[in-house]
Amino acid sequence: MDGLIVTALKQIHHPKGDIFHVLKKSEESFDSFGEVYFSNIKKDLIKGWKKHKSMTMNLVVPVGAIRFVFCDRRETSTTKGEFFSTIISPENYCRITVPPNVWTAFQGLREHNLLLNIANMEHDPLEAENIDLENIAYDW
Amino acid sequence: MDGLIVTALKQIHHPKGDIFHVLKKSEESFDSFGEVYFSNIKKDLIKGWKKHKSMTMNLVVPVGAIRFVFCDRRETSTTKGEFFSTIISPENYCRITVPPNVWTAFQGLREHNLLLNIANMEHDPLEAENIDLENIAYDW
Repeated sequence: MDGLIVTALKQIHHPKGDIFHVLKKSEESFDSFGEVYFSNIKKDLIKGWKKHKSMTMNLVVPVGAIRFVFCDRRETSTTKGEFFSTIISPENYCRITVPPNVWTAFQGLREHNLLLNIANMEHDPLEAENIDLENIAYDW
Repeated sequence: MDGLIVTALKQIHHPKGDIFHVLKKSEESFDSFGEVYFSNIKKDLIKGWKKHKSMTMNLVVPVGAIRFVFCDRRETSTTKGEFFSTIISPENYCRITVPPNVWTAFQGLREHNLLLNIANMEHDPLEAENIDLENIAYDW
């Protein structure tokens, strides 16, 4: 999907507990730092759809497994009208960098699912739009 | 402990899964952004002692419970010679901002313990010192 970046991340084995890379400021997909927060999502439940007008998100799943679905309705996008879906987890350990104006929804697949978002701006309810799940048809 | 800041963080209840605040750039204890990574620590095991010469750490525990022990051997510190210990977890949900040159060790207390560090610089093995646990006496 135009402007969306999936980056495989390193997990460094340590006998007392592994290290999981997330994001370094020197990485190409890093924009700027605004806020970090966690979002939990319960098994089988779906949060979405949400679209950020200004925020770029960096999404990582250190616990559980989460299915992400992105829907591109951007007028000037080369992938307008397309969906992109992927499941990330500690076993498929990636960072998804999501540009502004992409509709996003995500579903918890295990008992405990934890999402980390490193955003390029602080939370601002005025820059996010929410619509009900039924409003964008997708076969979950 | 001189320069160490413990900040209580908000957990926002959501029926599909709670939101946990971590760090915003406008917060007083935020310095600058360098790197984010996770460290797992197995039950009963202890990682440490480690001292960063330049790195300021921001430590949060979204899963499990971790006992942190900090030892102050800084020559010019008002708390030189002191220890500070605390247990953080989702039930005692805090961020610990640790200034450079404080010896740090931490112990996993549950089956799965996850530590997030938001550091003000990228990982650099040359700026960290490691010594064996026996080298600073503490009654774990």
